[in-house]
Amino acid sequence: MDVIDVIVAKRDGHELTAEQIDWVVDAYTRGAVAEEQMSALTMAIVWRGMTRAEVSRWTEAMLASGERLDFSDLPRPTTDKHSTGGVGDKITLPLTPTVAACGAAVPQLSGRGLGHTGGTLDKLESIPGWRADLTPAGMRDRLRDVGAVICAAGSGLAPADRRLYALRDVTGTVESIPLIASSIMSKKLAEGTGSLVLDVKVGSGAFMKDASAARELARTMVAIGTDHGVRTVALLTAMDTPLGRQVGNALELAEAVEVLAGGGPEDVVELTVTLAREMLAAAGLTAAKDPAEALRDGTAMDAWRRMVAAQGGDPDAPLPTARERRTVLAAATGTLTRLDAHAVGLAAWRLGAGRARKEDAVAPGAGVTLHAKPGDPVRAGQPLFTLHADEPERFDRAAQVLAQGYEVDGEYDPLPLVIDRVG
Amino acid sequence: MDVIDVIVAKRDGHELTAEQIDWVVDAYTRGAVAEEQMSALTMAIVWRGMTRAEVSRWTEAMLASGERLDFSDLPRPTTDKHSTGGVGDKITLPLTPTVAACGAAVPQLSGRGLGHTGGTLDKLESIPGWRADLTPAGMRDRLRDVGAVICAAGSGLAPADRRLYALRDVTGTVESIPLIASSIMSKKLAEGTGSLVLDVKVGSGAFMKDASAARELARTMVAIGTDHGVRTVALLTAMDTPLGRQVGNALELAEAVEVLAGGGPEDVVELTVTLAREMLAAAGLTAAKDPAEALRDGTAMDAWRRMVAAQGGDPDAPLPTARERRTVLAAATGTLTRLDAHAVGLAAWRLGAGRARKEDAVAPGAGVTLHAKPGDPVRAGQPLFTLHADEPERFDRAAQVLAQGYEVDGEYDPLPLVIDRVG
Repeated sequence: MDVIDVIVAKRDGHELTAEQIDWVVDAYTRGAVAEEQMSALTMAIVWRGMTRAEVSRWTEAMLASGERLDFSDLPRPTTDKHSTGGVGDKITLPLTPTVAACGAAVPQLSGRGLGHTGGTLDKLESIPGWRADLTPAGMRDRLRDVGAVICAAGSGLAPADRRLYALRDVTGTVESIPLIASSIMSKKLAEGTGSLVLDVKVGSGAFMKDASAARELARTMVAIGTDHGVRTVALLTAMDTPLGRQVGNALELAEAVEVLAGGGPEDVVELTVTLAREMLAAAGLTAAKDPAEALRDGTAMDAWRRMVAAQGGDPDAPLPTARERRTVLAAATGTLTRLDAHAVGLAAWRLGAGRARKEDAVAPGAGVTLHAKPGDPVRAGQPLFTLHADEPERFDRAAQVLAQGYEVDGEYDPLPLVIDRVG
Repeated sequence: MDVIDVIVAKRDGHELTAEQIDWVVDAYTRGAVAEEQMSALTMAIVWRGMTRAEVSRWTEAMLASGERLDFSDLPRPTTDKHSTGGVGDKITLPLTPTVAACGAAVPQLSGRGLGHTGGTLDKLESIPGWRADLTPAGMRDRLRDVGAVICAAGSGLAPADRRLYALRDVTGTVESIPLIASSIMSKKLAEGTGSLVLDVKVGSGAFMKDASAARELARTMVAIGTDHGVRTVALLTAMDTPLGRQVGNALELAEAVEVLAGGGPEDVVELTVTLAREMLAAAGLTAAKDPAEALRDGTAMDAWRRMVAAQGGDPDAPLPTARERRTVLAAATGTLTRLDAHAVGLAAWRLGAGRARKEDAVAPGAGVTLHAKPGDPVRAGQPLFTLHADEPERFDRAAQVLAQGYEVDGEYDPLPLVIDRVG
């Protein structure tokens, strides 16, 4: 087979055959197809898209490039959640032990943050002693004993996706729904979950700014999961404003623990419970304990403590805090009508909570605390944000972006927390 | 500047700025933009196209990547011709000395053949002693003394184009009219000609199979030339059937010499004279000798002999011939209504006249002689083709493709030799 024929076929708008897809992904993984050939092909895919048959096969070929975990012999059914990423999105932290407390096993492979949204592993690494790296056998032990594990994806899972993502990142070919969908799904299918709930974020702080593109991404991922025998549903959820009141690694972890203790912000609790119910239903556990009950009765918190301890973390250790703090005051009196997720994410990133390059470290205590949320009344001069950073020289640039990121007494048209359901 | 921003701008259908184009071509030449980034950008250009301003600037940036020859101080005006390539297209050979005989100077930089169309340098290299490589000073001496030079382009002319063409060749991004136009024009503008006539081929044996794409390519190249102060016109000419009756390096050279001697096939003479008149007009030589007269009175032949000798060739040496010959007979009686240029080009290539890889040698004597042309009467059993090759085992595969490449008493709808004129 000749790679130029494959590129030209897609360039000219033809559907690639299963043989062409298998061959090109395998040849790329082996190095027989050059980076410049794959980037031309991915740009042609951005242009022409992919049919359902193509995107399922493309995902299959990426899966075939590495190992695929299998937890089907565990006594509990497995289920997992994936979020496309948002600001203040710490839902994985309370959700994973809550679902485990209700009877499913959750093999959650997570990532680190890059840019304005945080990574679940960065948040967990604020816990002294906690380790992200586990072998497949280590994952299996914890799924059997605790029912919940959150760890880093090993390099053996879908290695073609890892290489392809790095290529797309430097060639302007990230923005393709079939390529985004197959990248996410190849990793989730490789981790061996039996069912999957997708949280597709929509709004200023999300990768997908509008609901129609988010819905197409959700449909594509649900189709891939279904074609691979994994029961998959997707929720479209709001990301026009941050989730909860804390944005930053240790700050979000503390808020997650509040939720596990039966408190915490209403939106974080609602999304945790909604996604947990979807996961239990997808896993076939129709008679399971209700997740809201597991948060109230302490069993979710027990599962959290066991999960953290099983990965070397001390659930009672004090969390790191930033060395410096600054309060930003409201400039006007009225109703807070806009609190932009992207602006808050960017501010947290500028304060040190995120990284610009993969090899950078994050400041665990850095971030933004929100003292009001959209719909709340505010008074000129009241504290609106608390900024947390290790270096005080970071405050000004963070405050600048926040000053543009909120509005008092403007138009008020918030998205509902759960916008739609696909699956 | 960030290359991803440039790729994304083109991907999303925006016009690139002059600064973006200058930067990206220069950075690619310096190695600061990677091959995989340039191939993604070229695929986005295949998709989105380029405006006139973009394609002119892109050409300018490729010109700026190397040296630009300047012959404006010569006593004669310079003019040149470029053909997009066809089967049996030996027109450059009689044309260059004919135009020189009429008073212009022709700095013709040519290439070697790849695939089913031949290269002018391969044809000239059938002459014992003839050398293709000249320095710019060597070109200038010959333009001053003879008025005509055909030589290889030095590696210092538009090096960005050389690298970009090699990249496009392996990434399925050759088929873009602005990229084709800027590639051709950057080389032609770098050679320092004062005016230019383009012969854009249309038909089965040409890169452009249909007249509308050929016309767009012609318009784009004329626009680029005009924007760079070089008077440029283009003719669209037929390439549904080979030019002349000889296809192959030494075979075509011999046919060119027939034309210079005042004979030769009607279509080769007509196209030579038509293009020569356009070149003289473009050079502003409105009162020059008519090219048909230069072919009749021997002055074109004199210029040819001086041009060949000035590059070490012996114009009186016998030309190489192939070791073996085979005659293919007509299978039916009637009128020859189709003689497909692509099939004849492919047959000549299979006989050894062309190369599959750049580093291959060509067999100078190999090729196909045509005993009838479309419109001619043929009788079953009469010789239709003579095949020339050094190895007799090449004949069968060449004869196979020719058997599919002609038709007797079919529909007859030939293209006119000159289809259109742009400029």
